Amino acid sequence: MLPRGPFSGLLTDLYELTMAAGYVQNRFNARATFELFVRTLPRRRNYLVAAGLEQALDFLENVRFSSEDISYLRGLPFFRHVQSDFFDYLSRFEFTGEVCALPEGTIFFPGEPLLRVTAPIAEAQLVETSLLSILHFQTLIASKAARVTNAASGRPVVEFGSRRAHGVEAGVLAARAAFVGGCEGTSNTYAGRRFGIPVYGTQAHSWIMAHEDEAEAFRDFLSVFPENSTLLVDTYDVRAAVEKIIALGRKPGGVRLDSGDVLTDSLWVRRRLDQAGWHDAQIFASGELDEDRIETLVQSGASIDAFGVGTALSTSADSPNLGVIYKLVEVDLGDTVRNAAKFSQEKITYPGRKQVFRFVEGEGKFSRDVIGLDGESFQGGAPLLVLVMRGGRRLEAPEKDPLAGIERARKRFLADRSGLPEPVLALRAAEPPFPVRYSKQLEELHDQVRQTVAKTARIA
Amino acid sequence: MLPRGPFSGLLTDLYELTMAAGYVQNRFNARATFELFVRTLPRRRNYLVAAGLEQALDFLENVRFSSEDISYLRGLPFFRHVQSDFFDYLSRFEFTGEVCALPEGTIFFPGEPLLRVTAPIAEAQLVETSLLSILHFQTLIASKAARVTNAASGRPVVEFGSRRAHGVEAGVLAARAAFVGGCEGTSNTYAGRRFGIPVYGTQAHSWIMAHEDEAEAFRDFLSVFPENSTLLVDTYDVRAAVEKIIALGRKPGGVRLDSGDVLTDSLWVRRRLDQAGWHDAQIFASGELDEDRIETLVQSGASIDAFGVGTALSTSADSPNLGVIYKLVEVDLGDTVRNAAKFSQEKITYPGRKQVFRFVEGEGKFSRDVIGLDGESFQGGAPLLVLVMRGGRRLEAPEKDPLAGIERARKRFLADRSGLPEPVLALRAAEPPFPVRYSKQLEELHDQVRQTVAKTARIA
Repeated sequence: MLPRGPFSGLLTDLYELTMAAGYVQNRFNARATFELFVRTLPRRRNYLVAAGLEQALDFLENVRFSSEDISYLRGLPFFRHVQSDFFDYLSRFEFTGEVCALPEGTIFFPGEPLLRVTAPIAEAQLVETSLLSILHFQTLIASKAARVTNAASGRPVVEFGSRRAHGVEAGVLAARAAFVGGCEGTSNTYAGRRFGIPVYGTQAHSWIMAHEDEAEAFRDFLSVFPENSTLLVDTYDVRAAVEKIIALGRKPGGVRLDSGDVLTDSLWVRRRLDQAGWHDAQIFASGELDEDRIETLVQSGASIDAFGVGTALSTSADSPNLGVIYKLVEVDLGDTVRNAAKFSQEKITYPGRKQVFRFVEGEGKFSRDVIGLDGESFQGGAPLLVLVMRGGRRLEAPEKDPLAGIERARKRFLADRSGLPEPVLALRAAEPPFPVRYSKQLEELHDQVRQTVAKTARIA
Repeated sequence: MLPRGPFSGLLTDLYELTMAAGYVQNRFNARATFELFVRTLPRRRNYLVAAGLEQALDFLENVRFSSEDISYLRGLPFFRHVQSDFFDYLSRFEFTGEVCALPEGTIFFPGEPLLRVTAPIAEAQLVETSLLSILHFQTLIASKAARVTNAASGRPVVEFGSRRAHGVEAGVLAARAAFVGGCEGTSNTYAGRRFGIPVYGTQAHSWIMAHEDEAEAFRDFLSVFPENSTLLVDTYDVRAAVEKIIALGRKPGGVRLDSGDVLTDSLWVRRRLDQAGWHDAQIFASGELDEDRIETLVQSGASIDAFGVGTALSTSADSPNLGVIYKLVEVDLGDTVRNAAKFSQEKITYPGRKQVFRFVEGEGKFSRDVIGLDGESFQGGAPLLVLVMRGGRRLEAPEKDPLAGIERARKRFLADRSGLPEPVLALRAAEPPFPVRYSKQLEELHDQVRQTVAKTARIA
């Protein structure tokens, strides 16, 4: 279930609110630019897939502080000395900033901004936590789905992971992100209704177990769903179950294998279905699958027509988070513009408003990316970040048909994936990784800011 | 943000709806019992902490099918042959069943039901996906928090992970579950307002970076929050930052270290703060911490008063999911009661309605658990599952003060944790694990069901 706006402004880390109070009370009237990007790739990953922008923009358009929210903050002992100016500010709060972003479905790499926010500094700060949370999760899942669907080599993959996603909302949004990342559909019925994503699913072991007899369970199911039913055959014994279905004499849409030696069983089942003349009855595999098991099954010649992937996909089990951050890169004080960067021991960031430029070779293959300053241009380098919001309002209203936007994202992803060099598509880490470098201008600005910071004794 | 009811009945896997349609259309009028339990422990884990029951019961009381939900289903080609009886059934749908559960905060082990649902079979089936999703997530996070807070050996731990939790709702509920698992509070301000959980947080690197001068950034923050401010000292150079704070001459509540060599820095900072006479200024550590790093820091004698733990906690990074399942154990057909179990190759389940009995030794230490049949009793074995819902209504209304229930859960967890044997509390796998066995009656029932299933030729 997705909450619709308004979204509470308290959906944020407390320190965003203390900093906002500090900016308002100290009349620190700057316009700040923050960039949201992923610091490094998870182990064995070579690329990321942008997703969740639609929900991020929903949030920005609809985040408000209710009087209940404000009373709660006023009542916190830590806010005791904060003047009422700040609470008045919150009561009028709307996000009024400008947002540039990678369109959903875009393949991107570490260091490349997925989103860039320019707004009065308190506003830009207050929305940090939710922007991160919304974009991180769908990007995480779309990026995982990209691996899973690539491993399936063209066989359809259906997302089955709602039950172990991180809560009900996560289940719905995992379905959306998995679709962007190339899945054919989902078992999450609400995601079907809400986003128009195709839904799949037939029966669980409990259906078989509830019946005295397995054959009766199959027959009773076919009586209600005579077309395209996929019957689950591993509750007791796969081969016995398939024989019972054949004995019923009614061709199902397919059968599902959910445990055991799926490779061997799939070959045996295919042979028996073919012998029964049911060449178009499909074999569907599920049960603790992930991209590695799918790759192995496909390469071993398993006779599987489609895959259902649950927990590994909906929790991105091999890497359940990305090192995504939201960093201040520019402070515009009206009279001066200061570029900001962080130079602490391990966590260096680059200053300045950036743009990502992608270079494509003759055959449509991506050759390299350059992270440059906004306003730079490079022959043959297409800029990826586009302006999506101005004055706190989307440039394009969300489409009436929610599926249209997601399908466009999915197409963009599939097109981008076809541009990736082969080693980058593999499940293991590509060596060398896809080449991404900073532009000369950006490197120069970085050195310059470092020197300024050092001079003003901000670094030892 | 938590959606309040009604919850859409479509928040479920499509196969729950096809099975429900099958039961309704075939007039399969059975009362079924399903049990929700975790099959095995993640690697390096020794116990689990029950959490999320409050939200699960909210869901059960408020799940409904809107006319929009029903029109959507009617429009699915797969449902073309389903008769209107089923859609009428959905339009009147309410959960009317009985629920037994482990109270939140209870420590439990694999195989032990966390929740037991008895209801008309279609109802019990339709709520499966959301019950799993709700209970899985909070149990996952509370169980992770238990490790983190145990590693901190009494030092407070604050949950900081909203930004990388799996979406906005997951951030709020991770805060709740982390509190049940022993955290002192959270940075998630909405969780503070909604559940009354204590909130913490002061400033980010962006606050420092937005100011021309680090000392000015500290001073300006203290002017708004003069009491108990925790100043972030690692933006540029920890030692230089601490000197600037001392030079300001205003004692902060504490300082926060977020990167670098936290052990060495903490010892240096403690010495300098003490030299300044600021013995009660605290040192707070954060930045990619998890239970292992905290254990190392504590055992190395780091001078840290409190920890902030983010991503590792809010995504349960070492194990982002549990093998939680919801299995049919009994079918009551009115005239006969059938015990159900699954005997497929790898995934065997036990039949019958179960209860968990916990045995406690002289000094209050837990010695073993027995999973028996409901109705069994054992001298010295306290039953853990309690009846929480009858006729689809909670036995106890949720408390006016939401914190009261969560605090009770937290106390229960802390009491249970003090009952665990030392090796079970460790961060590594206990060898042998905490002893849990099935009762003799349950083993006998299991054998009997297996024989029946074999006889009716359901297993080869």
